Amino acid sequence: MDLKRGFASDNNSGIHPEIMKAIEDANQGHCIAYGDDAISEAALARFREVFGEPLDVYFVFTGTGANVLGIRAAVQSYESVICSEIAHLNVDECAALENFTGCKLELIPTSDGKISANNIEPLLHVVGNEHHAQPRVVSITQTTELGTVYTPGEIQNLSDFAHTHGMYLHMDGARLSNAAEALGVGLREITADVGVDILSFGGTKNGMMIGEAVVLFNKRLTGNFKYIRKQGMHLASKMRFISAQFLAFLNNDLWLRNARHANKMARLFAEELEKVPRCSITQKVEANALFVSLPQNVVDDIRKEHFFYIWDESVPVIRLMTSYNTEMEDIHTFIQTLKSVMGF
Amino acid sequence: MDLKRGFASDNNSGIHPEIMKAIEDANQGHCIAYGDDAISEAALARFREVFGEPLDVYFVFTGTGANVLGIRAAVQSYESVICSEIAHLNVDECAALENFTGCKLELIPTSDGKISANNIEPLLHVVGNEHHAQPRVVSITQTTELGTVYTPGEIQNLSDFAHTHGMYLHMDGARLSNAAEALGVGLREITADVGVDILSFGGTKNGMMIGEAVVLFNKRLTGNFKYIRKQGMHLASKMRFISAQFLAFLNNDLWLRNARHANKMARLFAEELEKVPRCSITQKVEANALFVSLPQNVVDDIRKEHFFYIWDESVPVIRLMTSYNTEMEDIHTFIQTLKSVMGF
Amino acid sequence: MDLKRGFASDNNSGIHPEIMKAIEDANQGHCIAYGDDAISEAALARFREVFGEPLDVYFVFTGTGANVLGIRAAVQSYESVICSEIAHLNVDECAALENFTGCKLELIPTSDGKISANNIEPLLHVVGNEHHAQPRVVSITQTTELGTVYTPGEIQNLSDFAHTHGMYLHMDGARLSNAAEALGVGLREITADVGVDILSFGGTKNGMMIGEAVVLFNKRLTGNFKYIRKQGMHLASKMRFISAQFLAFLNNDLWLRNARHANKMARLFAEELEKVPRCSITQKVEANALFVSLPQNVVDDIRKEHFFYIWDESVPVIRLMTSYNTEMEDIHTFIQTLKSVMGF
Amino acid sequence: MDLKRGFASDNNSGIHPEIMKAIEDANQGHCIAYGDDAISEAALARFREVFGEPLDVYFVFTGTGANVLGIRAAVQSYESVICSEIAHLNVDECAALENFTGCKLELIPTSDGKISANNIEPLLHVVGNEHHAQPRVVSITQTTELGTVYTPGEIQNLSDFAHTHGMYLHMDGARLSNAAEALGVGLREITADVGVDILSFGGTKNGMMIGEAVVLFNKRLTGNFKYIRKQGMHLASKMRFISAQFLAFLNNDLWLRNARHANKMARLFAEELEKVPRCSITQKVEANALFVSLPQNVVDDIRKEHFFYIWDESVPVIRLMTSYNTEMEDIHTFIQTLKSVMGF
Repeated sequence: MDLKRGFASDNNSGIHPEIMKAIEDANQGHCIAYGDDAISEAALARFREVFGEPLDVYFVFTGTGANVLGIRAAVQSYESVICSEIAHLNVDECAALENFTGCKLELIPTSDGKISANNIEPLLHVVGNEHHAQPRVVSITQTTELGTVYTPGEIQNLSDFAHTHGMYLHMDGARLSNAAEALGVGLREITADVGVDILSFGGTKNGMMIGEAVVLFNKRLTGNFKYIRKQGMHLASKMRFISAQFLAFLNNDLWLRNARHANKMARLFAEELEKVPRCSITQKVEANALFVSLPQNVVDDIRKEHFFYIWDESVPVIRLMTSYNTEMEDIHTFIQTLKSVMGF
Repeated sequence: MDLKRGFASDNNSGIHPEIMKAIEDANQGHCIAYGDDAISEAALARFREVFGEPLDVYFVFTGTGANVLGIRAAVQSYESVICSEIAHLNVDECAALENFTGCKLELIPTSDGKISANNIEPLLHVVGNEHHAQPRVVSITQTTELGTVYTPGEIQNLSDFAHTHGMYLHMDGARLSNAAEALGVGLREITADVGVDILSFGGTKNGMMIGEAVVLFNKRLTGNFKYIRKQGMHLASKMRFISAQFLAFLNNDLWLRNARHANKMARLFAEELEKVPRCSITQKVEANALFVSLPQNVVDDIRKEHFFYIWDESVPVIRLMTSYNTEMEDIHTFIQTLKSVMGF
Repeated sequence: MDLKRGFASDNNSGIHPEIMKAIEDANQGHCIAYGDDAISEAALARFREVFGEPLDVYFVFTGTGANVLGIRAAVQSYESVICSEIAHLNVDECAALENFTGCKLELIPTSDGKISANNIEPLLHVVGNEHHAQPRVVSITQTTELGTVYTPGEIQNLSDFAHTHGMYLHMDGARLSNAAEALGVGLREITADVGVDILSFGGTKNGMMIGEAVVLFNKRLTGNFKYIRKQGMHLASKMRFISAQFLAFLNNDLWLRNARHANKMARLFAEELEKVPRCSITQKVEANALFVSLPQNVVDDIRKEHFFYIWDESVPVIRLMTSYNTEMEDIHTFIQTLKSVMGF
Repeated sequence: MDLKRGFASDNNSGIHPEIMKAIEDANQGHCIAYGDDAISEAALARFREVFGEPLDVYFVFTGTGANVLGIRAAVQSYESVICSEIAHLNVDECAALENFTGCKLELIPTSDGKISANNIEPLLHVVGNEHHAQPRVVSITQTTELGTVYTPGEIQNLSDFAHTHGMYLHMDGARLSNAAEALGVGLREITADVGVDILSFGGTKNGMMIGEAVVLFNKRLTGNFKYIRKQGMHLASKMRFISAQFLAFLNNDLWLRNARHANKMARLFAEELEKVPRCSITQKVEANALFVSLPQNVVDDIRKEHFFYIWDESVPVIRLMTSYNTEMEDIHTFIQTLKSVMGF
């Protein structure tokens, strides 16, 4: 396919130059494999500075891997994981959670991607009853699958509720950087400081080549994670090249600069889209995702020029994602196509 | 740890310059994620040229992932996988096979790392009996965990036997390049041409950064592998950067040049070691591994200078691996240390 | 607890005398274990008469076992099972399906316990997309968890739809006898004859001591079920005592006589309940279940005398089940308590 | 098949009359399902008397279920279970352990069915290394698969060793009654009193219809077993009928009387066999199993008259099991056949 630069997903962009340089710099001589090297040690130290002590960090390859293996640290097969019905964990991971952990997902309907303690409470009536999988983890996505952002207070409420009921709070932070930037806070303020127990921290969607981190804030969960990662087939032999990426990502605020750009592009994109008649933005543009309803008949024609996902065929609503290297030119081209297809 | 360049494993070396360049070259613009891009298409085409038609190729991140997911394509949970008792699949993968597939491993003792049809036959008396897991896959490692090499004839015998009994032949080819080089044949001659059904083809140990390939030669196994890979948490979003590495690896015979160097270094190393009194090489040096028995009292002192694995504590026997960028200097330094520790 | 005979569930009753006699009669001499005996052979033959050829039958111990193992015959871990959100399979089996098969359940909201092809169709947009578990089985419950009954036509529609889309139809027939009796048809007319592929046929709730049957109508599913059952820990050694129960259950229409009684008692119970003010029956009483809404304040007091399940705390709605040995006396006693608590 | 009463296995016999009576007596009125009934309460109390406090007991249907679910209480998927290579757990359960727990079995060769701490110690070198499944459970079989019996001292040594290394001791006690009788001790003296953590206590092979018990002596393991059993598909609805069997089994020493008879018959059988030329008993007859080597050419002819298992085809060695209702007549008939086939 020979498509224009597009908005299908932030993972369609490549490797940020600072990340690429870090990989090159790490390519010196021999190194003990599996993470017992100086770069990996430095990366861990940097995570501890950014996210606060105590914590353990384990690098994996994919967001699905981070979610499933991270949650595995907290669950037994006869337990359940509560998340929104549109959670990536539920919808886009080919039942990896069910298969690897044996657990059931309990789903909460959502209109803006978020869930709250009020939604969770009714699911707890099964506690203690052997016929039902026992709730053990609440999983939220930050930013949500609808591009919205949980505030620190909302997260604190969820973690308080979870802890009160003997549960853990997991955060799918594939786009955590975008959320922190949107809120104007650091990564720690929306994770460690507000009671998150397990974090999937995404690098790939924000400029890395390959790399996600499972960050464990709850020491009760850290004892055996190295075995979970290895059994889960996610232990990298040449670990230094993942570690080096994360080091560059966290140093000099690259994560933040990248997220800032992506978020800014989304806002500008939204402004442009709002000027187009019969286009309407259906979710608050809080980070780098835009959900846009369009007339039914134009979607196919636009797709001939730009690849993107259709979120809801029935309306239709399409999803557009900006990334660390989206350019104004990309936005203008898209708007151009849109207008042209719509006959303006 | 500040150790000298060493022989712990071929995965202690870094990224070959041609691979690095391929990653850089691939970092142009936007690309559809998950493998639907031009580089991935080219890599697949190149695999087809090298390994022959028909086949399907799926890239994953680790050798454990390649082994477990590849075998998963052929087994049901109530079936068993037959391998040598020292197979990486059995010894070094933290029960990933058992956990992901539910299958039992049936183990065959081996003195040189190889197994044969004669060893497998007695395990087939359980066929049809519901109390026992049913043999479905024979898995061999090429080169073996003891550095030896299966000949094409030996592989053909194993695949004939497997197919006669309704089983598939899987090859853990983490070091397939080294085997092909040692035998003076192409990759196809020891896989597709001699009946291998499922291949784990290793890139990481021979100069790549991250990347292993599951190559399916048996069309009956290919229908659903994409779901297995995704559920197995091994679907890369920025796939082009794995594909680009494999393209460079297969183009211009990089796989072969790298393997040739590593194998040559092992032979030279062996020659040097044989000159050292009380040192003896315990397995044929057919590729890039050396197994060396040493006096008990010297091992710890050598390890202060060089990291390597002790294969058998009781003798002791140590394992030394050469790689694509082992230098004569490295060998001389090691021999120096060895002699010095032994008092020569 | 010393409660009166009650309506908590049809599994609160004991063993029907004809079943008990069959167990006693089977207790003669020695028998080869695991089902290779004359009684088991006779039971299989009887199943074939009742349900029609071709089919295979495997006895297991529990309804959960029958559902999970039966469905396992048709699915791979990366596939999904579609059922109603109140399906026993989803709600009451402690995630046994997810754990044993690795599959995801896709849930359909229902007001009367039934689902239809219209509900399933939207779930099929994921077909062929590796990010999503692939729909492979539709599972319905007969009678439903709300006591309603699928007509033969409704089942045929579902199986036609399933087969058209490469899926199988599973029926949780824990109370299949009650459904057949209610419809005035045989067991075959609502299973084999209308396209059911996999049936969990319940014995325990209708007068047996222990025993459920997995009945496979689709020959493509039968090849390996014996291994699934054994690996699933449901192979009985003294099989003859399960077989003998099923033989008695199918002979002389015991299944039908028992179901007829239970259904009749439910109808009579409904008539009595309808006479009680502020009591209303919320689902059609088509078989042996009654769902009754009551004033909030009376439920606890009634429970002091009779054990039953509260279906929906918010209304509240309680569930009452009649069984093969419910007596009019039981009904009268319950009505008495109800009236007394309500102050009539 | 119309075979004479035989020695294939002790599960070929039927239900002991006292057990049958207990089932009949339990068949009175209605009872809450799933174990919340007076008979189940009484059975639990009786277990506590016989095996000592503190403990929890959960009834399941099969020996495989007891072994797998019991061990599941102690393991995570990345851990391993150590047992003899001929353990039922390894050989005869169709990989149920691997499938349900995800764990690897580590096997120890044995000539008499027993293992010892000396055999286990070498397997512990993997502790702490993420590439290897971590040893967590040692599983022994009492009586062993070769009919031999662990002494209390041997068990104590194993449990001391296990506990010293952070492991649990599981005992597959499918024939625990026979072992206790052989040793002249109670059930407690070879379980609770010598450090067993998890016991599979067999009923079916010693006169029950259906029923095995998972007995948990280690309180750290009991918290969640009820969920494991339900998810493992082994929660009986009409539990009272399993409980009643166990109550009768433990009351009036039925377990002991039955075992005594079986063991005695084995001794007498051994005496008779020893008189037959060219027949030799290959394992000590300590309980109710006999392993007999015979001339190659006679086995097939004897099997025409009597069903039994061939333990080792190569010698051949056959296995003969006596049971609670083996009669001298059965032995004489077998010896008769044997002599006749051998031409005496």
